[in-house]
Amino acid sequence: MSVVDLIERKRNGGRIEAGELAAMMRDYAAGRIPDYQMSAFAMAVYFRGMDDAEIEALTTAMLESGRRLELAHLGLPRVDKHSTGGVGDKVSLILAPLIACCGIAVPMMSGRGLGHTGGTLDKLESIPGFRTRLTLEETAAQLERLGVAMIGQTAEIAPADRKFYALRDATATVEAIPLIAASIMSKKLAEGLTGLVLDVKTGAGAFMTKLDDSLKLAQTMINLGERRGCPTVALLTDMDAPLGDACGNALEVQESVDCLRGKGPADLREVTLALAAEMLLVAGVSPSIGEARARATSVLDSGAALEKFRALVAAQGGDPRVVDEPERVLPQAALRTTVTAGKAGIVQRVEPRVIGRAIIGLGGGRTKVDDVVDPSVGIVLHVRPGQRVDAGQALATIHARDEASRKTAEFSLREAMPIAGTAVAPRPLISHRVTARGVELFGSDGAGR
Amino acid sequence: MSVVDLIERKRNGGRIEAGELAAMMRDYAAGRIPDYQMSAFAMAVYFRGMDDAEIEALTTAMLESGRRLELAHLGLPRVDKHSTGGVGDKVSLILAPLIACCGIAVPMMSGRGLGHTGGTLDKLESIPGFRTRLTLEETAAQLERLGVAMIGQTAEIAPADRKFYALRDATATVEAIPLIAASIMSKKLAEGLTGLVLDVKTGAGAFMTKLDDSLKLAQTMINLGERRGCPTVALLTDMDAPLGDACGNALEVQESVDCLRGKGPADLREVTLALAAEMLLVAGVSPSIGEARARATSVLDSGAALEKFRALVAAQGGDPRVVDEPERVLPQAALRTTVTAGKAGIVQRVEPRVIGRAIIGLGGGRTKVDDVVDPSVGIVLHVRPGQRVDAGQALATIHARDEASRKTAEFSLREAMPIAGTAVAPRPLISHRVTARGVELFGSDGAGR
Repeated sequence: MSVVDLIERKRNGGRIEAGELAAMMRDYAAGRIPDYQMSAFAMAVYFRGMDDAEIEALTTAMLESGRRLELAHLGLPRVDKHSTGGVGDKVSLILAPLIACCGIAVPMMSGRGLGHTGGTLDKLESIPGFRTRLTLEETAAQLERLGVAMIGQTAEIAPADRKFYALRDATATVEAIPLIAASIMSKKLAEGLTGLVLDVKTGAGAFMTKLDDSLKLAQTMINLGERRGCPTVALLTDMDAPLGDACGNALEVQESVDCLRGKGPADLREVTLALAAEMLLVAGVSPSIGEARARATSVLDSGAALEKFRALVAAQGGDPRVVDEPERVLPQAALRTTVTAGKAGIVQRVEPRVIGRAIIGLGGGRTKVDDVVDPSVGIVLHVRPGQRVDAGQALATIHARDEASRKTAEFSLREAMPIAGTAVAPRPLISHRVTARGVELFGSDGAGR
Repeated sequence: MSVVDLIERKRNGGRIEAGELAAMMRDYAAGRIPDYQMSAFAMAVYFRGMDDAEIEALTTAMLESGRRLELAHLGLPRVDKHSTGGVGDKVSLILAPLIACCGIAVPMMSGRGLGHTGGTLDKLESIPGFRTRLTLEETAAQLERLGVAMIGQTAEIAPADRKFYALRDATATVEAIPLIAASIMSKKLAEGLTGLVLDVKTGAGAFMTKLDDSLKLAQTMINLGERRGCPTVALLTDMDAPLGDACGNALEVQESVDCLRGKGPADLREVTLALAAEMLLVAGVSPSIGEARARATSVLDSGAALEKFRALVAAQGGDPRVVDEPERVLPQAALRTTVTAGKAGIVQRVEPRVIGRAIIGLGGGRTKVDDVVDPSVGIVLHVRPGQRVDAGQALATIHARDEASRKTAEFSLREAMPIAGTAVAPRPLISHRVTARGVELFGSDGAGR
């Protein structure tokens, strides 16, 4: 069976057998199938989709193209959280140390920012000295010692996915649910987890702008996890506006430290605790979601998670004083100016994509994978969608390295935050909980959230 | 505007501006856009289509990537015929010399066989010495002298199309009407024609198996021709069975010589004369389709077209004795055996794709562009779909170079020509005539065909 026949079959709506997909990904990873055939195949998948068996075969093929973390000897539950990404999403920085305080190993493998979305690795690397490139052996050793490691996808993990994702990024074939699900899950399954919690973002700043697509993606990933023996749960959370106030790498680390001190924005704390409760439940260390939530809250407010974060930073070569004096340790932008409301009214929206692109303009994000990021720049929001403001009230603070980029960012900010007389309907911060058993409205189990 | 944005826009159903398409094809031809982006774009076009303006812009961009034949100084109408291809279609070999006898220059640029379909160049090259690689200057000189040249697409003609077609062939993106139309018309418009006649094949052995698609393709190409100042007409002809009896390169040359002598299979003669009449009409040398048909018939039966063919063969380096002693001049296969009916009944079908693939198996066709073709092998059919046969009656003769391939071909032939008791409804040989004014049933003008 030639590759062109497989492309044609998918193009015509047919299905590809598991063995064919395995051979295809093996040959692609080995350079025996050219990029131009894989990109045409990806576009055919975009239009024709894949059934569950095809998605599982693709995931398995990409997973098996590389090594896995071997962590069974730890004798602990091993749980990770994955977010589909957005603007201001610094939850991982708080969540990973918090969960590691609860007798769960957290082998968290994250990505970099691209386009308007930020990435956990970039945030961590704004801490001077922080190394995200650990080998699998270093990662395993740190997990044994500390219960948590936050690393990047190494060349050993799912190399076929790595190659395929870079190609999809250059050929407008990223936005296909089967390919997104297979890409995420091939990496997560390589972590050797006993449970996984997904944060599927929905809204203007998310990968998935529509609820239906988010539900579909969540169900596809849950299905994959369950079939491969990794219990998986998803929360659908809002990304119609940035999460929290701080957007920009060092600024988000600072806000994460605030949150680890029991402070910080309420929405960030709420999403973090909800995901934490799901992780404790899926790990089997809490008997109910209510107990899990209470336990996570107490660990956060006790300062234990903050101390774990300090230890994590130190273990990975970062300056642990970031916990005590974030403003002194983290890089600071030269210019800091406040943007104020031109008139009184209601903030209609805070457009996450515009904010994300403004951060790229400030030098704090990437349009190409090899762009260098300035960790110091960013935007701190002072208002939320639906909030009433007076003329002259502070809307946001821009952290810029020069006047030209500051000016452009100010222009973008005014576009991102229109003010008018119309009332704005609130959106639920967390809308749905999805498990292998089905979809429920978040909080409908009466666990007191 | 980046290429990935253009791919994404097409993927989402948007349109690409003429200037964007021009830049895209220019950059692709120059190697500044990689194959993997163009193949993803082609697959997006497969699913989303293109509007008339996009198709015209793509055609123009590919046309302008190369040179054109400059033939205005000949002072003659310049008309070509293009067939969308099939099995047994040797019409060009008869038609080109015939039309050149009528004061019309025929700068015919043809292709090679690929997959189950044959190609005019391969047929001509089965004549010992025949050269199809003429330069544009040699072609122009021969047209001035002889009124006809039959050549391959040179590297100078629409190089962007050449590169893009090869990529489409390897990525299952050939079968998109906008891309087919633009590819054909970019080459035809480079011939500097004053008129063009299209033979759009429909049926099991054609590119387009459905009438609707054939009509769409015909109308798209006619529209392109007319917008670029080249009056264009199409006939929709049947390709549910091979055209004529002979399938295979040298065998088809021999049948063409028969036809040029006023003999040969009736269906081949009929399609040739119908296309000839359209060419005379579009060239403006005949006042009506009836007169054109009568004139073409008389030129064919007079032997003038045969003599023009002889001169053409000689002019392009071929052995002109092929006209007098085709069996001695043309390469002959070592084995020749007749396949007979296993039982009495009605021939249900003669599957052109199976016949075409059997010829590939005999060594007479290509699965890849660089396969070498054996001109001597092939299949001569003795029966037609719907024909009643007795047990033991000859169905076809196989011309093979060895016993193994002969045996496989015999097996395929029995599969291609099932015999049963059911009557078979006849299909019209030529179903529709399509012009810029619309679609009519063929023959409905009462021209006495």
